Amino acid sequence: MNQKYEDFAAQAKKISTIYSATGVLGWDQEVNMPANGASLRSDQLSILSGIAHELRTDQKYVDLIQSLLEDKTLNEVEKCNVRETWRSIDRGRKFSKEFVENLSKVISESFAAWHQAKAENKFEIFAPHLEKLVAIKKEEADIVGYKDHPYDALIDDYEPGTTVAEIDILFEDVKNQLVDFTKQILTKPKTNDSFFYQEFPHEDQRDFCKQLVTEMGYDFKSGRMDLAPHPFCIGFYPQDTRITYRYKTKDLSEIIWSVTHEGGHALYEQGMKMEFVGLPAAGAVSLAIHESQSRLWENNVSRSKEYWQHYMPVLQKYFPGKLDNVTPLDFYKACNKVESSLIRTNADEITYHFHIMIRYGIEKRLMDGTLSVNDLPKVWNESYKNYLGIDVPSDSEGCLQDVHWAHGSIGYFPTYSLGSFYAAQFFDAAKRDMPNLKQDIMEGKLLGLREWLRDNIHQHGMIFTADQLCKRVTGESLNFSHFMNYAKEKYTDIYSL
Amino acid sequence: MNQKYEDFAAQAKKISTIYSATGVLGWDQEVNMPANGASLRSDQLSILSGIAHELRTDQKYVDLIQSLLEDKTLNEVEKCNVRETWRSIDRGRKFSKEFVENLSKVISESFAAWHQAKAENKFEIFAPHLEKLVAIKKEEADIVGYKDHPYDALIDDYEPGTTVAEIDILFEDVKNQLVDFTKQILTKPKTNDSFFYQEFPHEDQRDFCKQLVTEMGYDFKSGRMDLAPHPFCIGFYPQDTRITYRYKTKDLSEIIWSVTHEGGHALYEQGMKMEFVGLPAAGAVSLAIHESQSRLWENNVSRSKEYWQHYMPVLQKYFPGKLDNVTPLDFYKACNKVESSLIRTNADEITYHFHIMIRYGIEKRLMDGTLSVNDLPKVWNESYKNYLGIDVPSDSEGCLQDVHWAHGSIGYFPTYSLGSFYAAQFFDAAKRDMPNLKQDIMEGKLLGLREWLRDNIHQHGMIFTADQLCKRVTGESLNFSHFMNYAKEKYTDIYSL
Repeated sequence: MNQKYEDFAAQAKKISTIYSATGVLGWDQEVNMPANGASLRSDQLSILSGIAHELRTDQKYVDLIQSLLEDKTLNEVEKCNVRETWRSIDRGRKFSKEFVENLSKVISESFAAWHQAKAENKFEIFAPHLEKLVAIKKEEADIVGYKDHPYDALIDDYEPGTTVAEIDILFEDVKNQLVDFTKQILTKPKTNDSFFYQEFPHEDQRDFCKQLVTEMGYDFKSGRMDLAPHPFCIGFYPQDTRITYRYKTKDLSEIIWSVTHEGGHALYEQGMKMEFVGLPAAGAVSLAIHESQSRLWENNVSRSKEYWQHYMPVLQKYFPGKLDNVTPLDFYKACNKVESSLIRTNADEITYHFHIMIRYGIEKRLMDGTLSVNDLPKVWNESYKNYLGIDVPSDSEGCLQDVHWAHGSIGYFPTYSLGSFYAAQFFDAAKRDMPNLKQDIMEGKLLGLREWLRDNIHQHGMIFTADQLCKRVTGESLNFSHFMNYAKEKYTDIYSL
Repeated sequence: MNQKYEDFAAQAKKISTIYSATGVLGWDQEVNMPANGASLRSDQLSILSGIAHELRTDQKYVDLIQSLLEDKTLNEVEKCNVRETWRSIDRGRKFSKEFVENLSKVISESFAAWHQAKAENKFEIFAPHLEKLVAIKKEEADIVGYKDHPYDALIDDYEPGTTVAEIDILFEDVKNQLVDFTKQILTKPKTNDSFFYQEFPHEDQRDFCKQLVTEMGYDFKSGRMDLAPHPFCIGFYPQDTRITYRYKTKDLSEIIWSVTHEGGHALYEQGMKMEFVGLPAAGAVSLAIHESQSRLWENNVSRSKEYWQHYMPVLQKYFPGKLDNVTPLDFYKACNKVESSLIRTNADEITYHFHIMIRYGIEKRLMDGTLSVNDLPKVWNESYKNYLGIDVPSDSEGCLQDVHWAHGSIGYFPTYSLGSFYAAQFFDAAKRDMPNLKQDIMEGKLLGLREWLRDNIHQHGMIFTADQLCKRVTGESLNFSHFMNYAKEKYTDIYSL
């Protein structure tokens, strides 16, 4: 037994347990808390986060971790725990208290201004705050340090090791391959999805979706599914990982794929190893890898032809008389309707990446100074015209639609696209390893895929980096061609291209 | 501004906020947590309680409070906050770490043994643990110190300042006055309550009860009502105070009075002053005063003739065809049915006090050594025969029925009876101050009573002791005759004595 390592692990678990308690408080805030509960909740969260922060930055703890970085006797899991804990603490240590307070102030003011700007459709209300925000994020990048591009220092916080150079190559592929393909699709008649827009009772929608996630392998003894203003997944630990959903009684498409999406996130969290709980070996590799798990279930599985072969009759039984004349193929086509749209969160899985590419281009240029905040709406609108062929009628539905920048999250957007690309690549590997996968999906047998994902991805936590994991599972680094081939095969079929 | 006091108050609020976070975690555990979530939850609670305990016993904080005890410049509220914080810390300070760990071990083993003993109906499984528990509670009493009776040191933890001498006088009154009166009632034909036992849909039961508590003045913007295995109320602070309920579809009586009971507790919590949150001035005086608020609404209000004059037609609308021939008087009589029974928690408001008196007599004698654990079942059964005229068929339904002793709670039981007696006395004072109160209740106007309780009791937190508060509101100390007169008037009417 390595006493130093045990001491480190005990303290790391304690800190993680406090953060998991703030997770429960956060979940309650979204799902249950009465309106007037906000002021105490904010105090609870700030006090607990403060305590966790103090423990995390305690000099003895920091020294202990630093000494373990050199310890050659640690095994791979232990090395991962030390390395990743250090990575996250080390980034934080670089910032002065003054900088952190200032950043927090700028973000809090930006958020309020963004809220008002969006409501009143006035970009000029948000602009001065975004300028301050860009300035302080540049400062952050300088403090963290980077080799080639200040944006690298920011994306590293969400997607460790990923760089502008790599993302540029990916989006170059998107541009070269996906733009023309999408144009082809958009010349075709739109698929009919009118049957989504009938009256579907809430309880039946919920119960159908509970069946979907249960059959994906989500364990309700280690989770629950609640109504909330926004769908999300939160894992306190593998044995208590919860998802939320929202619905529209007159639009069946609102709930289904958001539940299979959050269910995919939840399988990742539930699939971590209990023995590593509270340590990075039971943590998510990166945002993109997390997103790959949700996108794989949302798109590659629950928007597949095979999936609805099995689930269409199930769905019909939940809603007698509503969908009797809808064939699995009709439903499959409807849930894969491609169209240019203004709002990222409503976009289909193809045009979605243009939304991301546009945002990525803008935030990268804000960071290297080749775009000024004042020119942002103009560039946004031109890009939407250019890539999606649509006119943006207002900044509220344009460059003010997302909260990310107002929250100080610059470098976050690309992880969404990376998630889809990883998903396609992982799904190809799963098909390689399970030749009957499509047949299984057609028969509603999804647990084999869950096991494959658990074996190959979930249980490894942060032991491998995203790139190591990807190579280990698929034999190569992230490669856009998997997504492109998936898209081509699927949409050529749907749209008879 | 008194800097010392401000420093103390800030630290006290911080500690209280951490405890309130454990409250949310506890609520979630009862209401939402999936079965497998238990192990993390236990770690979260133990870590947060440990942190709060460290802060509470920090020598600087203790010294600060001690120095403020002498500060003559504090106002009444500030004095209360210092005095009550000190009282709770000082008790804890007297115990060595070894004693606390030992107590915790004895309780944890007792609880497990009690569980098994109750399930298998074997008192002998619990007996050796109860002996250890009695021994360590005697030690606790010796450490805390007492003047007349070791039990005084224990009840002081729940009902500050109350003594065996006082409770003996009260239960002497119960014996002298309530025993014969109850015998009179029990000679009369039983009231009919068969209409409770029909099929009542859960949702309608819940919605009816939500209406009841809303009209009592419970604020759902500052609370919520959820299904849980046990009904309880938990106040994180006045603006987030939640209640739970349980129901039986075939027994309407299961839900109603437990909701008005918990609603009464909740009005107390919601009625504390927001400006004092986190300090004793926004805390409950004692368990009995808290219980007086629940019993007042449960019995004096929602088991009154006037109440059902108003609510019977409302109830009938919730359950068309089920209660059409039940008059308000029938319903009033049914919900006040008196009968001897084995189980305390199912007892009516009259015989209930015999259950408590028996337990009090036993735990007092266990503490002063005049009763040995081995003789407990015999004394229990004789007392039930003596006071309630019933034979106890098994220890599981007898002296093993309650969890309190197994949890180390000796001195807790009397607070239930004290709560009812305070309730009757407060209700008399309310009638004195509001001559139209009965008429108001008959018209469903309950907010006046809520205001009266808020003005006279809730908003004062711990500023007054229970006795001071009682004198201030009613003009005298706790006096059993209020309860006895209430019981006589009500049950003479119901049973035509």
